[in-house]
Amino acid sequence: MTTYTAPTRDFLFVMEHLLDAGDVNIDLETLAAVLEEAGKLAAKVHSPTNRTADTDKPVLARGQVRMPVGWGPMHRATADGGWIGTSQNPDYGGQGLPVLVNSAVLEIFCGANMAFGLCMALTEGVIETLEHVASDDLKQRFIPKLISGEWTGTMNLTEPQAGSDLSTIRTKAWRDGGHYRISGQKSFISFGDHDMSENILHLVLARIEGAPDGVKGISLFAVPKYLVGEDGSPGVCNEVTPVSLEHKLGLHGSPTAALSYGDDEGAIGYLLGAENRGLEYMFIMMNRERHMCGVQAIGVAEMAFQHALAYAGERVQGTPMGHSPGTPIIGHPDVRRMLLTMKAYAEATRALACQSAAMMDAGETNSHAQAESEFLTPIVKAWSTDVGFEVASLGMQVFGGLGYMEETGAAQYMRDVRVTSIYEGTNGIQANDLVFRKVLRDGGATARRLLDRMSQYVNDMDVSAEPVLKHLQSRLEIALADATSATESLIVAAEDEARYVAAVAVPYLKLMGIALGGFYMVKGVAVAQGILDHGSGDEEFLRTKVSTGHFYVDHILCQTTGLTHTITQGASVVASLKHEVY
Amino acid sequence: MTTYTAPTRDFLFVMEHLLDAGDVNIDLETLAAVLEEAGKLAAKVHSPTNRTADTDKPVLARGQVRMPVGWGPMHRATADGGWIGTSQNPDYGGQGLPVLVNSAVLEIFCGANMAFGLCMALTEGVIETLEHVASDDLKQRFIPKLISGEWTGTMNLTEPQAGSDLSTIRTKAWRDGGHYRISGQKSFISFGDHDMSENILHLVLARIEGAPDGVKGISLFAVPKYLVGEDGSPGVCNEVTPVSLEHKLGLHGSPTAALSYGDDEGAIGYLLGAENRGLEYMFIMMNRERHMCGVQAIGVAEMAFQHALAYAGERVQGTPMGHSPGTPIIGHPDVRRMLLTMKAYAEATRALACQSAAMMDAGETNSHAQAESEFLTPIVKAWSTDVGFEVASLGMQVFGGLGYMEETGAAQYMRDVRVTSIYEGTNGIQANDLVFRKVLRDGGATARRLLDRMSQYVNDMDVSAEPVLKHLQSRLEIALADATSATESLIVAAEDEARYVAAVAVPYLKLMGIALGGFYMVKGVAVAQGILDHGSGDEEFLRTKVSTGHFYVDHILCQTTGLTHTITQGASVVASLKHEVY
Repeated sequence: MTTYTAPTRDFLFVMEHLLDAGDVNIDLETLAAVLEEAGKLAAKVHSPTNRTADTDKPVLARGQVRMPVGWGPMHRATADGGWIGTSQNPDYGGQGLPVLVNSAVLEIFCGANMAFGLCMALTEGVIETLEHVASDDLKQRFIPKLISGEWTGTMNLTEPQAGSDLSTIRTKAWRDGGHYRISGQKSFISFGDHDMSENILHLVLARIEGAPDGVKGISLFAVPKYLVGEDGSPGVCNEVTPVSLEHKLGLHGSPTAALSYGDDEGAIGYLLGAENRGLEYMFIMMNRERHMCGVQAIGVAEMAFQHALAYAGERVQGTPMGHSPGTPIIGHPDVRRMLLTMKAYAEATRALACQSAAMMDAGETNSHAQAESEFLTPIVKAWSTDVGFEVASLGMQVFGGLGYMEETGAAQYMRDVRVTSIYEGTNGIQANDLVFRKVLRDGGATARRLLDRMSQYVNDMDVSAEPVLKHLQSRLEIALADATSATESLIVAAEDEARYVAAVAVPYLKLMGIALGGFYMVKGVAVAQGILDHGSGDEEFLRTKVSTGHFYVDHILCQTTGLTHTITQGASVVASLKHEVY
Repeated sequence: MTTYTAPTRDFLFVMEHLLDAGDVNIDLETLAAVLEEAGKLAAKVHSPTNRTADTDKPVLARGQVRMPVGWGPMHRATADGGWIGTSQNPDYGGQGLPVLVNSAVLEIFCGANMAFGLCMALTEGVIETLEHVASDDLKQRFIPKLISGEWTGTMNLTEPQAGSDLSTIRTKAWRDGGHYRISGQKSFISFGDHDMSENILHLVLARIEGAPDGVKGISLFAVPKYLVGEDGSPGVCNEVTPVSLEHKLGLHGSPTAALSYGDDEGAIGYLLGAENRGLEYMFIMMNRERHMCGVQAIGVAEMAFQHALAYAGERVQGTPMGHSPGTPIIGHPDVRRMLLTMKAYAEATRALACQSAAMMDAGETNSHAQAESEFLTPIVKAWSTDVGFEVASLGMQVFGGLGYMEETGAAQYMRDVRVTSIYEGTNGIQANDLVFRKVLRDGGATARRLLDRMSQYVNDMDVSAEPVLKHLQSRLEIALADATSATESLIVAAEDEARYVAAVAVPYLKLMGIALGGFYMVKGVAVAQGILDHGSGDEEFLRTKVSTGHFYVDHILCQTTGLTHTITQGASVVASLKHEVY
């Protein structure tokens, strides 16, 4: 099995040269040191347990979920290294680093072991939520425990009848002295139970007795698995029971549980923020969660690429044209095409995710940056996950017949990453979020600002020295013009009929991913070529930047024209109100 | 679980109205009766065992593979119904029906149960091979047993070091009286052992002692699992041992075995045709095998569509825009878009596969038809399988979170169909076959003849009555022009550098699939609209033909321009002889 290697050089290249980070100052030395250490932990500790958890799955036994061998110590080592809460408040034990750094670390951990990375991401999401809405007392009680790894966190939203539509949540809550009691059934809870930590903090959406129907009657509660004593130590069991584990396509390292709350007197829970504002709080957190979901997929894509690259450099099968016998399959043009596709997608999605994370950091003090990160988030989530799946499937294809055999490990990447297009809001929901909330709500202002900034850069590119740069510039101009005209056409269509916009929201999101990702790939070529022209830098790395960017333009970016046709011409046939499609 | 329904109406529509079948006369009444019966068997007998074999997999126990409950009787019922050898020679018990009918029946059986359909397809392939190359004596001994279902057949090509490149085969053969002895290891043998039939006939590639190295020293042998007595009945064991079963991503109903031949004195085998011409014989059969592989994927795509459609018509989640509360998710524009994508792909690939099968029939007496079927075969194989995987993945997406849970069954379709892009020659190999053997070898003559005939039809379309037809006509003209210019650019590029052609062979195959599939979709709209205008026919069915064809044009066919850019501009960056991509 190929050991994961963190793409530290690429992260540093992106952060040093490609981001439009506004006023945010990125300390590259610290960053390099952090990513170096994260990469070591990922390679040595997280990577070895990835395959074993796929075959030796967690089990539910005697009312508790038992994790595979090695997962408890892995969690401990990760927490002890200070890797939980890297971007959280130092007052509670966090490291206060930028979201950008946290995002890079998460990609690295997920590349080595996506299921374990998910557990971390969930805990980070719970900490974030507590930071925003919990009382000081609850923050003090819970956040240090989560950051130290003594506890982990989960999100309890879904119920059997309430998936994408949370307005129909039925889990009940009622006041009982200084806390609340909770009763109901939650499903699809990732790491809903496990034995890696002393305790688990569940964030639970429930409806307080007498609350209004629909979305305005849902509140958010913190419900620990074990009740906490006065001294903060876990005490007796709360009424939270893992009822069953799901049998999933992949991500077997993550136990997905159905949880039953309050089978007797009601589970004890603590209200977060105000009553009936639970969904609103969830939406505050949603951007960060969705960003992390996209990042998970980028990590898997990177690993699938490294895995396929290693095999293609060893396996001999046929003599590639123009090569001598014994040349491995990487010499076959189509194998090279597949590997370049994988690499180009991993790099383009990584650059875009870094840009979005940098805008989250800048957004603390700058509303335009905030709007840009909110605009990019559904793209990072949906485009990276769809592309991550495509990359993992290409990885299988590079392995040929062996790729279909589970022991190779290529299929696991594909099975694991597939969930990222579904959870944290399906990619269809992301696309609706993008068009309705991020494009239309401000009348296209954020979209235009972003596209104009990119067009300005392209216009200003100095392409005189390199003919290939001139080609990339002109193709990127076309792609950005496509993105602009598609955006304007959505704004016009929305005046007529919202269903028309929803009908082409997914193609629009894909177009934006490809075009914006293309911007960073072309900028990468320009920067790399500039450094090479001055005879400095890591020549091998920079030359591959040039060829990967060039590949992206002629194999991926050129799809924007077809997508723009779909967006401008393809809505009416979809938007019909008839149900019959057969 | 949704029960499979054979798409009989669509088959009949394609065969009656869409095919350019030359002189072949299709008897629609017989056809309708055959498909009706095939559909009944598929729904009642094949469909119920599809899920069970995924979980209750075949096992290797006491030296034999044991199939799940129900598979033996299913095989018997299928053979007794006369469904094996539908297009084979009546002298040996076949039904002598056209390949077109056989192809439709296979799609239907694979839609209900791909693994079982694969077993049939393998047996058909073995019968075909025997028909072409075996002596009359061997034909007489083996073919009736295969058609009656008493025996099944397998293809033994792959060895651990010889996958896509069969020139390195090491399995040995030597003459021993009136037969040969065989010794060696074969891997990835589908249905290499099972207990559904009395006997199994393995076709085995091996190298006769003293034969030349490489592809010109490989011979083809028939090796029965049990040796056959004078009276034709199976007798003692031959030296063929299933050593292990593969643990695959999907298609669990098909036991994929490693077989060991000749552990003692050598397995007894019978030479087929002449010595050292085995690979040549395999290539004769390859077109038919590859066609059937594409058809398997179309069957799964159809079933994945039906499964998702049924769910989307029941599941309520959110109120779709423009609909009243309680409307199921099919009312959401993006769900409708996904279903239309699935349906459009299933119909386009089906029409193209039918055209290719009709050309196989016509090709018996017409060399142009033969050349057309050989041209279409790699497209039917690779495009249908890539698209089938995309369709199955969309099916999961329609199910949302439930789609990731194995009990839903949506994930199985995706896992099962994934192998079809790999086996029978990876899709990269198909693309090389298309560009080098089918486009370049005759200097583009077949490609031009096919594209010209289609362009002629488009020019002649009467679009005066319907504005939508005019739109489809103009878009199809663009797509066919793209296909033509991409073809011509390959021919020019080949004069310079073969690696340039190999570098864009996969995008070229995809372009041809989309454009040629688009031809049949647009022709379908024109025909359906014409029937509707005369107020006759099955109105609901015809109206969906119109909307699916319209959808195809604005959501799929519009990709041809981007692909043509890749083919004409994207080769050089891939074709580099350097191995470094990172």
